[in-house]
Amino acid sequence: MSTPTTPAVILRPATVDDVPQILTFIHALAAYEREPPSTVAATIPSLTSTLGFTGGPAYARTILAFTPTGEPAGMALYFNNYSTWRAKPGIYLEDLWVEEKYRGRGYGTALLARLAKEVGEIGGGRLEWSVLKWNEPSIKFYESIGAQNMGKEWQVMRVDGKALEELAEKGPVAEWKV
Amino acid sequence: MSTPTTPAVILRPATVDDVPQILTFIHALAAYEREPPSTVAATIPSLTSTLGFTGGPAYARTILAFTPTGEPAGMALYFNNYSTWRAKPGIYLEDLWVEEKYRGRGYGTALLARLAKEVGEIGGGRLEWSVLKWNEPSIKFYESIGAQNMGKEWQVMRVDGKALEELAEKGPVAEWKV
Repeated sequence: MSTPTTPAVILRPATVDDVPQILTFIHALAAYEREPPSTVAATIPSLTSTLGFTGGPAYARTILAFTPTGEPAGMALYFNNYSTWRAKPGIYLEDLWVEEKYRGRGYGTALLARLAKEVGEIGGGRLEWSVLKWNEPSIKFYESIGAQNMGKEWQVMRVDGKALEELAEKGPVAEWKV
Repeated sequence: MSTPTTPAVILRPATVDDVPQILTFIHALAAYEREPPSTVAATIPSLTSTLGFTGGPAYARTILAFTPTGEPAGMALYFNNYSTWRAKPGIYLEDLWVEEKYRGRGYGTALLARLAKEVGEIGGGRLEWSVLKWNEPSIKFYESIGAQNMGKEWQVMRVDGKALEELAEKGPVAEWKV
């Protein structure tokens, strides 16, 4: 007979009832990333609808981490990306958060490991995410669990706000055949 | 009475019949990015299934660009991403390609403009993509149409291959409650 192992962390997909907790974690992460609270435009209703809890598309999914006694300790919020060369999906981790008082217990690794498993389950090839360049402790942690820095060769470009509205009107006369 | 305008480019979503053309463009892009042909593991069957043409999830979508006389000239292959702070979806452009002989006609801008419109249609906030750092002509073009370089502050991390399999087994004992 084997002795049952007590889990050190409990992971489960978030439900609609977890949205307030997700928003609390988002605010904590923004503060950690040295952003003013006004950076977070997300609200309980906007998260509820975009995470697919009101019948629309789920643009992202969330896995929550709890202590063995059920205290909410962290989350991973992610969506599927795609590699054309491989013709395979992957997972892009948009937000990883572990509450300060629960750090050092491996919860971040447990969340990343769960996502690595999910990449395998969908026949995918990659797990990716972004990190702030000044955040050396996180970069060291990520490298220790096997992540490579793609930022040596690649840079991300972004269009948003007014530039995005203007871009929509640029270019030659185009016919859009749906 | 207004004179009807002849479109300079025709854009439409790809169908299953376009998969061989998409694969041709993927190989052309890989060569342009100085990758050996073996980099492209994608095949017609693997693209067909991962692009949602066999009933499974569409992990990415493709818009094709044609000349006014119907010659295939380029494509944009993309998927939805998500901003937690905004609680809004966006579009991540995985591949943008215009055949060399059709460059300089604004087809790349037309494809980007179409994606910028789609970001608006889904209530989204951002259009993003990655560019190789040595590719200065492309970076200049992207900046000219309003894109910002996020690579000054952020770097992408990636886990794949054997490191991904190993990561799936790392961390403390976790209970996964589905």
